[in-house]
Amino acid sequence: MRAGILGVAGYTGAELLRLLAGHDELSVAWVGGKGSAGKALSEVLPGSAGHPPYADLQIEAFEPSQAAHLSEQLDVVFCALPHGASAGAVAALYAAGLTVVDLSADFRFKSAAVYEQWYGPHPHPELLGLAVYGQPETHRADLKGARLIASPGCYPTSAILPVSPLLAEGLIEPAGLVVDSKSGVSGAGRGASQSKLFCEADGSLRAYSVAGQHRHGPEIEQELALAAGAEVRLLFTPQVVPAARGILTTAYARPRPGCTLERALEAARSRYPKGGLVRVLEGGALPDTRTVNGSALATLTYALDERTGLLLCVCAIDNLCRGASGQAVQALNVARGWPERLGLPSVAMFP
Amino acid sequence: MRAGILGVAGYTGAELLRLLAGHDELSVAWVGGKGSAGKALSEVLPGSAGHPPYADLQIEAFEPSQAAHLSEQLDVVFCALPHGASAGAVAALYAAGLTVVDLSADFRFKSAAVYEQWYGPHPHPELLGLAVYGQPETHRADLKGARLIASPGCYPTSAILPVSPLLAEGLIEPAGLVVDSKSGVSGAGRGASQSKLFCEADGSLRAYSVAGQHRHGPEIEQELALAAGAEVRLLFTPQVVPAARGILTTAYARPRPGCTLERALEAARSRYPKGGLVRVLEGGALPDTRTVNGSALATLTYALDERTGLLLCVCAIDNLCRGASGQAVQALNVARGWPERLGLPSVAMFP
Amino acid sequence: MRAGILGVAGYTGAELLRLLAGHDELSVAWVGGKGSAGKALSEVLPGSAGHPPYADLQIEAFEPSQAAHLSEQLDVVFCALPHGASAGAVAALYAAGLTVVDLSADFRFKSAAVYEQWYGPHPHPELLGLAVYGQPETHRADLKGARLIASPGCYPTSAILPVSPLLAEGLIEPAGLVVDSKSGVSGAGRGASQSKLFCEADGSLRAYSVAGQHRHGPEIEQELALAAGAEVRLLFTPQVVPAARGILTTAYARPRPGCTLERALEAARSRYPKGGLVRVLEGGALPDTRTVNGSALATLTYALDERTGLLLCVCAIDNLCRGASGQAVQALNVARGWPERLGLPSVAMFP
Amino acid sequence: MRAGILGVAGYTGAELLRLLAGHDELSVAWVGGKGSAGKALSEVLPGSAGHPPYADLQIEAFEPSQAAHLSEQLDVVFCALPHGASAGAVAALYAAGLTVVDLSADFRFKSAAVYEQWYGPHPHPELLGLAVYGQPETHRADLKGARLIASPGCYPTSAILPVSPLLAEGLIEPAGLVVDSKSGVSGAGRGASQSKLFCEADGSLRAYSVAGQHRHGPEIEQELALAAGAEVRLLFTPQVVPAARGILTTAYARPRPGCTLERALEAARSRYPKGGLVRVLEGGALPDTRTVNGSALATLTYALDERTGLLLCVCAIDNLCRGASGQAVQALNVARGWPERLGLPSVAMFP
Repeated sequence: MRAGILGVAGYTGAELLRLLAGHDELSVAWVGGKGSAGKALSEVLPGSAGHPPYADLQIEAFEPSQAAHLSEQLDVVFCALPHGASAGAVAALYAAGLTVVDLSADFRFKSAAVYEQWYGPHPHPELLGLAVYGQPETHRADLKGARLIASPGCYPTSAILPVSPLLAEGLIEPAGLVVDSKSGVSGAGRGASQSKLFCEADGSLRAYSVAGQHRHGPEIEQELALAAGAEVRLLFTPQVVPAARGILTTAYARPRPGCTLERALEAARSRYPKGGLVRVLEGGALPDTRTVNGSALATLTYALDERTGLLLCVCAIDNLCRGASGQAVQALNVARGWPERLGLPSVAMFP
Repeated sequence: MRAGILGVAGYTGAELLRLLAGHDELSVAWVGGKGSAGKALSEVLPGSAGHPPYADLQIEAFEPSQAAHLSEQLDVVFCALPHGASAGAVAALYAAGLTVVDLSADFRFKSAAVYEQWYGPHPHPELLGLAVYGQPETHRADLKGARLIASPGCYPTSAILPVSPLLAEGLIEPAGLVVDSKSGVSGAGRGASQSKLFCEADGSLRAYSVAGQHRHGPEIEQELALAAGAEVRLLFTPQVVPAARGILTTAYARPRPGCTLERALEAARSRYPKGGLVRVLEGGALPDTRTVNGSALATLTYALDERTGLLLCVCAIDNLCRGASGQAVQALNVARGWPERLGLPSVAMFP
Repeated sequence: MRAGILGVAGYTGAELLRLLAGHDELSVAWVGGKGSAGKALSEVLPGSAGHPPYADLQIEAFEPSQAAHLSEQLDVVFCALPHGASAGAVAALYAAGLTVVDLSADFRFKSAAVYEQWYGPHPHPELLGLAVYGQPETHRADLKGARLIASPGCYPTSAILPVSPLLAEGLIEPAGLVVDSKSGVSGAGRGASQSKLFCEADGSLRAYSVAGQHRHGPEIEQELALAAGAEVRLLFTPQVVPAARGILTTAYARPRPGCTLERALEAARSRYPKGGLVRVLEGGALPDTRTVNGSALATLTYALDERTGLLLCVCAIDNLCRGASGQAVQALNVARGWPERLGLPSVAMFP
Repeated sequence: MRAGILGVAGYTGAELLRLLAGHDELSVAWVGGKGSAGKALSEVLPGSAGHPPYADLQIEAFEPSQAAHLSEQLDVVFCALPHGASAGAVAALYAAGLTVVDLSADFRFKSAAVYEQWYGPHPHPELLGLAVYGQPETHRADLKGARLIASPGCYPTSAILPVSPLLAEGLIEPAGLVVDSKSGVSGAGRGASQSKLFCEADGSLRAYSVAGQHRHGPEIEQELALAAGAEVRLLFTPQVVPAARGILTTAYARPRPGCTLERALEAARSRYPKGGLVRVLEGGALPDTRTVNGSALATLTYALDERTGLLLCVCAIDNLCRGASGQAVQALNVARGWPERLGLPSVAMFP
């Protein structure tokens, strides 16, 4: 199948190029962008130029009116445009019969009202019901055959994976959750801004958009509510640390009666069986982003704190691979009925 | 006054050398060490050799029996030995009439039983009552004239500073606190070990010693209990991120009735007046270790989360300066009646 | 074919695991080590555990006497032991009929005398003549069918690739070359030592083993002499900078009459045709390790300095992939007649 | 004396604030800027806000017409504006009777023609003859009483310090020099641009502006020619590595007859006596930026390469301290007759 990448010039676009270079069913036949349109791909992403099929690609501009034309050349488009800019492109591509995997936030919410609260009015609310939230471990059945996939946010991935099995099994309270996330700098994208400069980010550990100000909060709540079958309210604290990639999330939950460490681990093990792309750590081993950098794996575990009675959840992912482009490919693999791991690295790049 | 540094070869020793080079009342007249004894200081810490008084210092071995002799050359000794190794040296130096600032954990606990639980039997429990916990903002009165100062741990400093004013004012519950700390790698010291190698720590965000396993947990509890006038039980999660210096701590507390963001800020402002070495941020500004690297300042603030009702506390320090050597100098300044900021940098090194 | 990795616990072992997980002709069936023997692979390299075939591998001890037994289970062994330790193992494995790719320095030199000068007496000088220097671009013909491959050093790879075409074409003088190399920290291996700690390497730019003291100097000279058909004498300056991976080498040569920038580029282009694993940059583009991290590609270019008349050569590689494990796989691909790029990533991990 | 800092919002401005906070003769009474005018200093550089005299400073706009007015409030102005923008401000401040230390390139060249070739037409060529090149070790006599100081570039500082004593003593040839410099990212300033983003610079070793394209080349040549008493022609290769601060320069020279390692060291020792801000390393010790970060020191040494006969010069500095703001303060100290080290840290921040 022939794939296109719209918004190729950013970090998730670069990661898609890396992953699809090793994918047996997909080859990249078209790349598009906005500010980068008209440039050679090898100029904007010189690290891709050594792969012969990418060596001579040009980045093309895209207008929704070209969707029909594109649908003659391509089968699927990964859309890595910023939220807001994405919705119109996705709607046109979808209407032209293409399968679309959208990496923006534009189709992640089921409620147009919630979307509007965080991102502004939704230009295509009619598609919200059609889009499938692209986290295979929690939406595998819905993904089969899906043609419009909304790939999850990076922070939400790192929170939903460890917490949802606990809520689904009724092991923890759905209220009063704390999600404390530490992210590498690439989560903020490739746009030039002072706070992302090497000299500002190096040596900088900082929190931002705390106490209900970050738009990944409601996304986590939506998905955890699905798992809990009840409203979930949580406090989300995003933080940036001096790494290019990686998210480490620690979540704190109040256990319900009967919840033990073993039952928590068992809930995760049955949700994430061996051989899948989520690894449940046991015996005191703890997640480390170093061991998932460059890989599509998530690792997670739990600990019960005797002094406070709280349950600690810990999860590590590569924000660009598992938290974005890798999960997008994984979701498409599921949608198409291909092996779920196809094209996805599961050995970390170390060091 | 003439100062000695015992355990000079580590990171807190190096930081003491940096700070004391600019201290008007203290000059370093003697340096000692264990593995480094017999070497030139300029070999072990070449970054100190450009300061003329340090250029020709030799690192000497130290046996407790030499304490009396040392007391003829020195007025004060900073002891930066590892815990356990420190107690004997400190006891001898103190008995010889020297003022001692101990950077290890050996004299931080009031209870020999609690110490033993975490560090093994205490060799000099008789001194625990004499030692003053060297955090000036919370023990200023006790420090005046003190001759045995137990300099606080780095994580505890970052937790006590933001949380203790809230407990002292009865604004939060003393139970169920969560302290989630992110530290640079230098907190683990200068000893060679694989997990601290550049290639292992770079790109690595990881938790360790979670759920009641880290010995800074009880130290935080001891000091917060003093503030609360009641037992405090908390969950402490230490994490390591790829920075040389810096700790960012986020703490989560349940507010008591009547607690507002403004009252929390007011509690901090009255504990930490303007012009001191703790800066209370307001108006949505958030702490960033980048702005305190190399400085003795702590910055902190609070946020009230409407969705969960929890109070978020955020604090940033430089673990080696404010969290260790800088605070040691600050405490001695207070003990001696010198200006509290003497010799302490308050402008960060940026970048 | 079934592959084994001896010395799997280090960085080149980890990189081999990553590369072979995506190799269509090779699967890792055995891993061995020295200090790590007896441990689970997933404990020593947790980043490999997400790949199902690696999940339950145990690291085994290896004695030369077991070579015959191993030859029943395996077809090829990558030996990533330290130099000195490698020779005996390689000799036994080779004698048992296995194909061996050795990543140590033990079989890189043609002269036992030169080897001895830098590494001590060679235990198996009789094999030096059999071993093929595993740089495919300069030894492709010799590699066909080779059963003992000596994989090049990382620094030498970054120097030989840009300079050898110039010498082969007689464009530069073989004497008075300067090779100034900047390497990431992983080049020094995974053994714990103070100078490699995060806190020592972060922010540290430093030279070491300068002026004829580094053993990669004679290795570069050997290979460049082959290209030149004459003795080559060079000054080699290795330096370490705060990156996990990557080598950037700048070399300075005196052009011979008739040498122009265009002729230098042409020499490289004909040696490294498009579509191969060396990319010749033109039009002022300059190599950047960022664009080859995680990939088997080398990028290189030249510039002629009008003020001094010197020719500048610049080359960037990933020291662990192109400079070690990737090149080892590439050489084996050539030896076996497989496609040269098989299993080798050519899109960089970015960021 | 009262100092002003014009262009305070950049990295050299921040470094001046840090240094002057500990200077006994100077206090910062005014800060100005261009894009940052109208903002609170504590917003633009929050790391400065803990120093009480800086806490409430506002960044003011500056027009040359205000110079006379400023001269009533200030004695000296450090001008840290970009080149081109600096000349007009400096001319006005100087004309108003202020002492000016300019950190831009605008007054570094003696020849208006050479300046024009690299930076465009000089708006105040009449001042070029008045300005003193602010490297105290090479222009100490001229600096005494100077009122217009042109602070050297960072790369030039790292090249001139090791090479000029050799040229002055006639130990090396003035032609065919190679200067290979590795710099941290802060050398490129604080302006937001993609290539300086954390995710682009982390893991990136790259050369730029090679082969006569970097404007620090002619600056180095001017100063080395003064030392040599003859024209100097060199090849300069600037490179960027993933550190915030630091420059490591390796230079390669052809020794003249009679030049030995001992004579090279002796030339440096007599130029840079013990106790000064340049440290000459001997006995095989090599410069490391880690040991000068945050300090005004330069460290340098030499090695003679037997294979090629070339002399290797190695120098490490902190580009922002020794290479910019620290050297600016040092030059002013000399100009005013204050102790040369006043306010200048000579113990590195480590780690």
